[in-house]
Amino acid sequence: MIIDCHGHYTTAPKELEAYRQKQIAELKEPSSARSKGTISISDDQIRESIDKAQLKLQRERGTDVTIFSPRAAGMGHHIGDATTSLHWSQVCNDLIHRVCTLYPQNFVGVCQLPQTPGVPPTSCIPELERCIKELGFIGCNLNPDPSGGYWKDPPLTDKWWYPFYEKLVELDVPAMIHVSLSCNPNFHTTGGHYINGDTTAFMQLITADLFKDFPSLKFIIPHGGGAVPYHWGRYRGIAQDLKKPLLKDHLLNNVFFDTCVYHQPGIDLLFKVIPADNILFASEMVGAVRGIDPETGHYYDDTKRYVEALRMSDEDRRKIFEGNARRVYSRLKNKIPASR
Amino acid sequence: MIIDCHGHYTTAPKELEAYRQKQIAELKEPSSARSKGTISISDDQIRESIDKAQLKLQRERGTDVTIFSPRAAGMGHHIGDATTSLHWSQVCNDLIHRVCTLYPQNFVGVCQLPQTPGVPPTSCIPELERCIKELGFIGCNLNPDPSGGYWKDPPLTDKWWYPFYEKLVELDVPAMIHVSLSCNPNFHTTGGHYINGDTTAFMQLITADLFKDFPSLKFIIPHGGGAVPYHWGRYRGIAQDLKKPLLKDHLLNNVFFDTCVYHQPGIDLLFKVIPADNILFASEMVGAVRGIDPETGHYYDDTKRYVEALRMSDEDRRKIFEGNARRVYSRLKNKIPASR
Repeated sequence: MIIDCHGHYTTAPKELEAYRQKQIAELKEPSSARSKGTISISDDQIRESIDKAQLKLQRERGTDVTIFSPRAAGMGHHIGDATTSLHWSQVCNDLIHRVCTLYPQNFVGVCQLPQTPGVPPTSCIPELERCIKELGFIGCNLNPDPSGGYWKDPPLTDKWWYPFYEKLVELDVPAMIHVSLSCNPNFHTTGGHYINGDTTAFMQLITADLFKDFPSLKFIIPHGGGAVPYHWGRYRGIAQDLKKPLLKDHLLNNVFFDTCVYHQPGIDLLFKVIPADNILFASEMVGAVRGIDPETGHYYDDTKRYVEALRMSDEDRRKIFEGNARRVYSRLKNKIPASR
Repeated sequence: MIIDCHGHYTTAPKELEAYRQKQIAELKEPSSARSKGTISISDDQIRESIDKAQLKLQRERGTDVTIFSPRAAGMGHHIGDATTSLHWSQVCNDLIHRVCTLYPQNFVGVCQLPQTPGVPPTSCIPELERCIKELGFIGCNLNPDPSGGYWKDPPLTDKWWYPFYEKLVELDVPAMIHVSLSCNPNFHTTGGHYINGDTTAFMQLITADLFKDFPSLKFIIPHGGGAVPYHWGRYRGIAQDLKKPLLKDHLLNNVFFDTCVYHQPGIDLLFKVIPADNILFASEMVGAVRGIDPETGHYYDDTKRYVEALRMSDEDRRKIFEGNARRVYSRLKNKIPASR
């Protein structure tokens, strides 16, 4: 079985974006009632949006299950206030739930959190619990920068986040550390801010001892870990200068990287420096890069090809394609029984 | 000849830091006269600070010349105002000039710029001209984020920077794109902010057409280009989605990467995806990582070992160790005649 741990609903029916635009427009009228409103999308619309995109690509590429969450750039935590984010997250998560209900063999949900800059992340706990306990989701996407490119909240290692981590541990669900849209003109969203977010998060984790406080907390750093594997020597050296343990002991019991790296030499490097136990297969499709690589004739984000081109043991291959995802997203077994 | 294009004076005598602390303290007394003040450092102090550090490592590692600039994290453009930055830059650059005068075979100067958040970079032109024309420097370090981790000034592709680029072109000197200290607690300076700065700059360049306006402008992106080579497929794919030319045509006539990547697999990747014409040897010593890699028994930042371990033609090797630096820093020939 091949589990893709990183897919977003980037192809949602246009009614979702219309809902969001209406919500944003209403922010300009403070007198308007802050009702959640409604959104009307039929099952057929959902099927059409999925059948021709993620499901088609799953079949063409030969993957089985996608761990699926709302569009990351769409989370837009910097917009409005905590009520705005709560309503928007509920709507987005409900839609993911509908996809997962329509295609229970193909998609398992991960939730967007109703984060807001300056608001303690405890505010996200009710929606997290709703998604995990009521909707059967298996994890969440945690935005380390709800300000959208200005990095105004405390680092992930700050006590600010601790009550939320306690809930993750209690529910036994991991968080993918994933920023959203950049509203800072310096940062291109998918080419700058995403990759910087990954690199930043890992470096924050190096400087602290978060996993001493939360030994069972699990983070996935997407996009192949940002710059981290490429600069693995730098990070090992900085940890050493900071008198931290070896990175494998300091972080690799709790931190995992996905394979959203869109060329063979990058994937080769990832597998050379990061242990197979810490790599989860993922493609981020349909996502940041949509074209076909003229150098290979295949989609850039068809990452299964790159992973399959690697020489590794069958055991490692099973870990990367399935076993590690099951270990990190421990609730996955309730949704998709293990193969064989 | 082996030219290291990226070295900072991280070992300057303690009087330099004392000067800076006094300058910062005086900012709290707005009534104090804004004089530049003086700094007293003897030639012997400079020799001692260099002989036991950069010069010793040059000899031990077998490199010949370092393109040398003030400590990057020390630039601190976010502190004070334009006058603060001007005085501090002059003091730092004068000290680099003294090193280069004492060791004319070993060090060639690159200047710190007196940047200040919100102040147009035209304010840096007089100090740039002084350093190039009077002190014989061959380039500058340009900070894409003078705010120190808050990214408040416009992207490098904005017209904001154009008058400064015109001067770079006129003087025929390149800029290394190098951030300074992060005062944002989210970003570790050398492990987060530096690498993000590199990635951010390259992605900014992808989205625009800066080099159509400045065909002879040259940028060096340090630290192996941040995350860029590792995600080369992503960047090629994003450029393609944006209808930009192939990256080699769009950017690689003007953008160069150094080899400050502190492990063999990272260097292997860099050379696999980036053309040899676009790579300049560098070590950043004495810099971000000071320890010895227990996996190799050698200093992490002894990057010459990694480059020498690569299989490549003698011609490519000469380019990387010398030829490309001479091409990019065209004024280098006036200071250090070509070997043979």
